[in-house]
Amino acid sequence: MQLETYTKKFLPRIEEQLKEVIEQSQIPGDSSLREMLGYHLGWTGPGAGPKAAGKRVRPLFLLLVSEAVGGVWQKSLPAAAAVEILHNFSLIHDDIEDRSETRRGRDTLWTMHGIPIALNAGDAMFTLAFRAMQKLSRSHSSEVCLRAYHLFTDACLALTKGQHLDISFENQENTQVDDYLVMIQGKTAALLSASAELGALLGGAPVKLQQTYADLGKNIGLAFQAYDDYLGIWGDSEVTGKSNSSDLLARKKTLPILYGLAQNGKFAELWQDEITEENAAALAAQLKAEGAFDYTKEKADTFSRSAHKALEQAAPRGTAGEALAELIESLIQRKY
Amino acid sequence: MQLETYTKKFLPRIEEQLKEVIEQSQIPGDSSLREMLGYHLGWTGPGAGPKAAGKRVRPLFLLLVSEAVGGVWQKSLPAAAAVEILHNFSLIHDDIEDRSETRRGRDTLWTMHGIPIALNAGDAMFTLAFRAMQKLSRSHSSEVCLRAYHLFTDACLALTKGQHLDISFENQENTQVDDYLVMIQGKTAALLSASAELGALLGGAPVKLQQTYADLGKNIGLAFQAYDDYLGIWGDSEVTGKSNSSDLLARKKTLPILYGLAQNGKFAELWQDEITEENAAALAAQLKAEGAFDYTKEKADTFSRSAHKALEQAAPRGTAGEALAELIESLIQRKY
Repeated sequence: MQLETYTKKFLPRIEEQLKEVIEQSQIPGDSSLREMLGYHLGWTGPGAGPKAAGKRVRPLFLLLVSEAVGGVWQKSLPAAAAVEILHNFSLIHDDIEDRSETRRGRDTLWTMHGIPIALNAGDAMFTLAFRAMQKLSRSHSSEVCLRAYHLFTDACLALTKGQHLDISFENQENTQVDDYLVMIQGKTAALLSASAELGALLGGAPVKLQQTYADLGKNIGLAFQAYDDYLGIWGDSEVTGKSNSSDLLARKKTLPILYGLAQNGKFAELWQDEITEENAAALAAQLKAEGAFDYTKEKADTFSRSAHKALEQAAPRGTAGEALAELIESLIQRKY
Repeated sequence: MQLETYTKKFLPRIEEQLKEVIEQSQIPGDSSLREMLGYHLGWTGPGAGPKAAGKRVRPLFLLLVSEAVGGVWQKSLPAAAAVEILHNFSLIHDDIEDRSETRRGRDTLWTMHGIPIALNAGDAMFTLAFRAMQKLSRSHSSEVCLRAYHLFTDACLALTKGQHLDISFENQENTQVDDYLVMIQGKTAALLSASAELGALLGGAPVKLQQTYADLGKNIGLAFQAYDDYLGIWGDSEVTGKSNSSDLLARKKTLPILYGLAQNGKFAELWQDEITEENAAALAAQLKAEGAFDYTKEKADTFSRSAHKALEQAAPRGTAGEALAELIESLIQRKY
């Protein structure tokens, strides 16, 4: 139950830090940009509150690593804000790219303000992620700050590359499973990896341990995504909150579906036709029969084992280490 | 004629540096993202060449300042690439926001690839601006690199705020002249200011001189914009390459138009009606009669005087200093 204790301690400070950074988007005489960013972060407007804000997983992860390597977590707060803001920048732009009208049950920025204003608000959010890092120089050497900028930038680049692949796959015939793994490495794993690495760097861990944490973050991201892809087809709708086989209905090219298509069997044939609420369950069963369930499970398990191995190697200390292990379990727990 | 000599010397090295950075957008097995960015920078595709590339004013400016304060210009190349890449990121997103189908006579990225892919390509370009800065650490202290990151980030923030105001003004009834000046300070002046300040910082100038150069860059940006606004209404179409009164036809709320609207006279009345090729000249004449021509000229002259004062104070050295003065003249020359 250490995670709960730490979450209660960290969350208010993360929110405080986020607010300080977002305040920088205030324009003299025009608060509309700042208000949009605050709305997106779940602070204001219809439906505001913790559910709209999301779980702040990345900053929590970063701060726990910082303490678990023996550092002072407060000194890592600017980077914690940076990873959360970067994540939210990507959500604002993803929503435009995917034409998603709602997120966490609320209207997305572009549906409320149109594409031009929302696109630019995303750019402002992106910039603020870098702006958040500036405060690191108050409690870290210039060398450490610079290293933080470099690895954060590399994560941003991986993120945009992953997103490029994700959009490209939608309009592409024969996406391979390997391409997909490269894509989620950028889109899901890179920022979790950077969060862990930043936490270790700023907590004062030696380079080798920073690398172990980067590896931990990456494998958590990959395992999480593989598990999420499993849930998108065979997940219990009461647990996931989405309808069964939702990824099939949305024709999302996730890991099991790409695996199934590569088999060139009955599933690949059925995929050509319309997918409806009525035939989705039969399609999911066919996909399972062709080995996609086992394949996805095996992939998730492999990434999960790598994550646990990295965690063991990292040997996080104290109660923060316990909370870290709990956080990881909550992200990559198995419910097959 | 020093400017020509320096341009010939600097441009190939700027392009080389840009190419090295853009190469970072290569995805294993997928070069489409890298190709898009190269196309946008004028290197490949239909119409590729110097005209498509643009003048690279910002990096030239930055490098000239670096040498004119007594520094080694080669050491500033990473920052020169960064400001050019940041400028081009803003163009990619502006084109989506303004629904501009062509730029410099070529199709814009979003018209070729759709909004989702082009939006994300802009994000990649944005990231690469920060990526370009990484190489600074090879020839500058961590303190100087960190200062460069901070001021570059602040310029990005000013840019997105300026763009927010610019888009907002389009849908807004009573935009004031003062709001407009705040907008162009962000949208046009901030990056020129940052270019000059970075050049001075990396060239080893003392803090006070860095500030003088920042001030120089800002006033060049403001003077340039005011002059451009003048040209958009009263410019000679043979010089500007646009039709006369083009800003009137596009109903762009530029400085003279906002001034005219604030007079609440005949011009403000005529503005309510349709503006056509036929009545545009009469409208431009009315605007002039109500003082907007003199007002815009006076503003441009004031900013121009401030720029010249800053230049005098900066006292740039040697042949690079001469080239710098020439560059500034070419940007804010008057042709009333």
